Amino acid sequence: MDVTQLGEFGLIARIQQTLSSPSNPDVLVGIGDDVAVLRADSDRVWLATGDIQVEGVHFMQAAVTPFDLGRKALAINLSDIGAKGGRPRFALVSLALPRGLTVEFVDELYKGLKREADDFGTVIVGGNISRSPSGLFVDIFLLGDAPRNNVVLRSGAHVGDAILVTGTLGDAAAGLALQSDPGLSATPTYTLTAKAKLALPTPRVREGEWIGASHLATAMLDVSDGLASDLGHICDASQVGARVLAGTLPVDEENRALARSAQGDEWSFALHGGEDYELLFTAPAANVQAIVGGLANATGTGATVVGEIVPVDAGRRLILPIGVDVPLGSRGWDHLADQKRGFQ
Amino acid sequence: MDVTQLGEFGLIARIQQTLSSPSNPDVLVGIGDDVAVLRADSDRVWLATGDIQVEGVHFMQAAVTPFDLGRKALAINLSDIGAKGGRPRFALVSLALPRGLTVEFVDELYKGLKREADDFGTVIVGGNISRSPSGLFVDIFLLGDAPRNNVVLRSGAHVGDAILVTGTLGDAAAGLALQSDPGLSATPTYTLTAKAKLALPTPRVREGEWIGASHLATAMLDVSDGLASDLGHICDASQVGARVLAGTLPVDEENRALARSAQGDEWSFALHGGEDYELLFTAPAANVQAIVGGLANATGTGATVVGEIVPVDAGRRLILPIGVDVPLGSRGWDHLADQKRGFQ
Repeated sequence: MDVTQLGEFGLIARIQQTLSSPSNPDVLVGIGDDVAVLRADSDRVWLATGDIQVEGVHFMQAAVTPFDLGRKALAINLSDIGAKGGRPRFALVSLALPRGLTVEFVDELYKGLKREADDFGTVIVGGNISRSPSGLFVDIFLLGDAPRNNVVLRSGAHVGDAILVTGTLGDAAAGLALQSDPGLSATPTYTLTAKAKLALPTPRVREGEWIGASHLATAMLDVSDGLASDLGHICDASQVGARVLAGTLPVDEENRALARSAQGDEWSFALHGGEDYELLFTAPAANVQAIVGGLANATGTGATVVGEIVPVDAGRRLILPIGVDVPLGSRGWDHLADQKRGFQ
Repeated sequence: MDVTQLGEFGLIARIQQTLSSPSNPDVLVGIGDDVAVLRADSDRVWLATGDIQVEGVHFMQAAVTPFDLGRKALAINLSDIGAKGGRPRFALVSLALPRGLTVEFVDELYKGLKREADDFGTVIVGGNISRSPSGLFVDIFLLGDAPRNNVVLRSGAHVGDAILVTGTLGDAAAGLALQSDPGLSATPTYTLTAKAKLALPTPRVREGEWIGASHLATAMLDVSDGLASDLGHICDASQVGARVLAGTLPVDEENRALARSAQGDEWSFALHGGEDYELLFTAPAANVQAIVGGLANATGTGATVVGEIVPVDAGRRLILPIGVDVPLGSRGWDHLADQKRGFQ
C-alpha cells in the first residue's frame, strides 16, 4: 500500500505500534504528540520537537524570501514549544541544499533563523548540511525546557471546560488562497494581513509560557493543521467531546467572505485552514476571566472563548449562528497526502 | 556563488559568522562541532546531534534494505554521541516520503530504527512526517547526556599525546568501491566484511562512554569523513599538528590492495574513505597501556596507536613505511560537493 493512501495520521498510528515499548519513566510524552516531554530532573522537563519546510510542499522559492523562510522554519517549532508552556532554548538546523542554490541565499536564510532565534531567546547550537538531489529542505530540531508543573498537555481537558483560542483564525489560509487564486480579492489592508500571516506567523511563545506558568489551563496545543483537526487531538487525548460556536470564532469578516468565495463555506478557513499558529487551549469556566485578562495584561494578546468541552458521547459539533448543529468535521491539512482530508 | 563551489566546511565557517553571538554560559560547545554540548545542571550536560540520510546522496534504495537503512540512520547519530563520551537517550525521526513509497517500507524502516535504538538504550520519542517531491529523507535528531567531566572534546589534544583509533579503517570505502566498480574484486570473506561495514556500521557507543568515564583521553571524535579529515578537526580545535605512521594504521591487507587498484594509493581508503565510524582519540603516552587494555577488557574492542600529536608548526604529516614523510592531505568526504576534496 502506498503511504499516501494511509495518510499522515494513519501512518503515525502504525509507527506507534512498531515502536511500542515498556513505558519509560523518563518519557512523560512520547510518539504521537508534536512535542516530546522528557524528564530532566525531579522538577524540570526537556521539551523536544522538530518540523520541516520542504520546497514544493511547504513553500515555493519564488514566493518567499530566504530571510522569511528562515524565520518561519524556526517559528513553527517555537510555536510547538510555546504551546506546551515551555521556553525554547536550543535549535539544530539540518539543511539539504540543491545544486545551484547560492551562498547568498543560505546567508539570508541563516540571518532569518538568527533573527527569529534572538527574538525568542533561543540559540542555534548546531546542525548538519547535506546535498539534496532536488529542492531545498530546512529541517529544525528545537529543545526547550520548563518546570514540570507548568507543562500543559493535550490530555487534560475536562467536561465543562471552556475552549479558547488566541488571536484570529484563518488568515494564513486566506493568504494562501489570495496568493494562488487570481480570481479572489480583498481590501489591500486585509490582503497584506493575510499574506503576512502566511509568510511569517508569530509564534505564541510568551503567551504559552505565561499560560503554563499561570496553572489556569487544562490542555493546550498550537493550531497548525486547522482548529477542527487540532481540537480533535485534544478530544482524542482527553477523551472528551467539543461544542464550538461558529459565531464566536475570532475571524475577520473579509476572511469569511473569501472562504465563502473560495470554498463555499464562510467558516472553512477558520476551522480547516492550516498554519494559524495560534494557541488553542481549555480552562475551567471559573478561570476564563483570569486567563483572558492576565494574558492580555502580560503579553498584549487577546484570547476568545469559542466553545466548551462536552462528554465524549456528545461528539464534536459546530453550532452555526442560525442554531443548527453540524459535525465539526476534521478536514485539516494532511502533510503526507498534501490535500485536505475529507472524512466525517 | 553556488554553494557547491564553497564546499561544506567553507559554508559552515560562513554560517558561524552569521550566527556569532555573545557567548552563552549554557552552550559549552556550539556550531561547528558534530555535537552541541549544553549545560543541564552543575555537573551534567546534554549532548545534541543530528545527521541525515538522503536518497541519491547517501544511499540508493536498490542497494539497501529499509531495515538496514533505519539502523544506519540512527547508528551514525549514536556514533556522534558515543564519540563525546556520552550516553544516547532520546531520538526524534523526521521523514520526508516520496510518492509511491509503500507502508511496508516505512514499517521496515521503523523496525530497523527501533532495533538500533533498543540495542543502545535509546528511545524514539517523536518526529515528523512530510511529503518529499523526490526521494526519501531520513533525518535524525539525537539527544544524549553525560557527566560533564566525562565529555571528551576535540580541543583537548596536547603535544606528545598518542593518536589512537578503534577497530579497522577503510572497510566501508572498500565496500562502496566493490559495490560500484565491477572491475574490483576481493576474497568472499573480505567482500562480506567490507559491504557489511558500509551497510551497517557499529557505533562505538559503549567504547566512547568507557573512554569518557576513564578520564584517560584528551580529545575524541568519530571517523565519519576519513581519518585524515577528522584528525584535521582535532588539530584545528586543539591547535596542534600530527604525525601519522602509515605502517601502524589498522588496515586489512586486502583493503590496501583494493585501494591501490581503485585509487593508486594503498592508504587512500584508510585515510580518506568515509563512514568508518570508529573512534579517533588522543591520550598522554603514559595512559596508552591503561586505555588500550581497559577498553579491550570492558568492551572487547581493540584500539591501535597510529601516531602522535606534534607542535602546530610541524604540520600534519604521514610517515610512509619507507621513511618518507608526506603531507597528510585532507581529501575526506564533502557532503555538499558530493566528491572528494583535493586541498591539503
